[in-house]
Amino acid sequence: MNREKKQGKVYLIGVGPGDPELITIKGLRFLKRAEVVLYDHLIPMDLLKEVSRSARLIPVGKKHGAHSMSQDAINECLFHEAQRGKKVARLKGGDPYVFGRGGEEILFLKARGVDVEVVPGVSSVIAVPALAGIPLTQRHLAMTVAVASGHVTEDNDPIPVPDADTLVYVMCVSDLDKTVKQILKKRSAGTPCAVIENGAMPGERVLVGTLRNIVHKSRTAKLVAPAVFVVGDVVRLRARIFTKRA
Amino acid sequence: MNREKKQGKVYLIGVGPGDPELITIKGLRFLKRAEVVLYDHLIPMDLLKEVSRSARLIPVGKKHGAHSMSQDAINECLFHEAQRGKKVARLKGGDPYVFGRGGEEILFLKARGVDVEVVPGVSSVIAVPALAGIPLTQRHLAMTVAVASGHVTEDNDPIPVPDADTLVYVMCVSDLDKTVKQILKKRSAGTPCAVIENGAMPGERVLVGTLRNIVHKSRTAKLVAPAVFVVGDVVRLRARIFTKRA
Repeated sequence: MNREKKQGKVYLIGVGPGDPELITIKGLRFLKRAEVVLYDHLIPMDLLKEVSRSARLIPVGKKHGAHSMSQDAINECLFHEAQRGKKVARLKGGDPYVFGRGGEEILFLKARGVDVEVVPGVSSVIAVPALAGIPLTQRHLAMTVAVASGHVTEDNDPIPVPDADTLVYVMCVSDLDKTVKQILKKRSAGTPCAVIENGAMPGERVLVGTLRNIVHKSRTAKLVAPAVFVVGDVVRLRARIFTKRA
Repeated sequence: MNREKKQGKVYLIGVGPGDPELITIKGLRFLKRAEVVLYDHLIPMDLLKEVSRSARLIPVGKKHGAHSMSQDAINECLFHEAQRGKKVARLKGGDPYVFGRGGEEILFLKARGVDVEVVPGVSSVIAVPALAGIPLTQRHLAMTVAVASGHVTEDNDPIPVPDADTLVYVMCVSDLDKTVKQILKKRSAGTPCAVIENGAMPGERVLVGTLRNIVHKSRTAKLVAPAVFVVGDVVRLRARIFTKRA
């Protein structure tokens, strides 16, 4: 019998910042059809209810100190499943290409001839401040936005501070003090800022302050990951956006 | 008869970059329920098929030189409809808070006691490069991203050039030459860059070049709006991401 080999494909899907309703129509469509689903621990877990009963679920993210798969192992796993002819959904919190390592995964797979499609998602960088009442741009106030990681690594030491009006740092919890120290070399201590913990999720907390006091506030509040740090005058708009009805 | 006044509400919905399937589940849910829909001309028009038959559609964006509503008039219209007790969907291409003037609309409405909910969307800033094979961050290559408008205004002259690894300019068509001139003060002429016209839409065109030749290429190609301009080493990844299957 001449059985043609079924062709596998990997979908790199950004599922948004935490609210399961912030996945796109396209992302959800591919998720429902997937035969294998690899997911990070930061995705909204309610989305897994949408997966076909026959699909295989593979958690690859780290949570509460439990073991997680290395990036190399994730790459190999995606490759292996696609080689077996499977439709693979690779779910990523936020967007795959903004601090999501989607670029690394697609390059690995493409170099091995695997068909990959990227489905952009609502990035936490944008949505977490938005849901906390902070627009990233505003005429006459913030004309440029820069996004960086607030986590110190060999690539990221010292923490970068681009000269943009609004700064957004992801992965900001463990090294917030070092991040603020770097920003203070370029911005005044009175610069407004906010840390948003569990953005777009039920347990969301927002700490508003200035570069002078935000580290102290975060320590007092026992800030935990995930959190997004926003710096700049746009943070002041929150008070007007969250005004109670007249 | 004691008829309680119906309470209006405005939903500021980011509908994504052009592909109608890149709206979020939440955005689509609110759109379907809306009684009045105000929309920009850059939204995917197929989305209007999802609107209730009884809803009123109000185009407010400018297209092909036709008259458009001023920002003040849009604000007043949103306020007026909400005052009448209507559920109003305000559709914006991309995300409302990233060069979408969502901040201006929400501040105007909140100051007048109107209930407003923002629904973040997939930003063109992220999705347009992604769909053209360009991740905005990549370990060891691009640790920071900055976003700016490439359109000269009183607020934006000269065009800003933040010191980030990847630069993304929206509204880049009319003043691309001025934008490149500013960037060349900080980056070498050989810096890779790409202009993506009609990103995420059927007529998408991608021009890849360097800061030295991109203005010429864009003129030769008779570039038209909307387009996104991406600058930085990540543009080189496109060639590897768009490799044909082995």
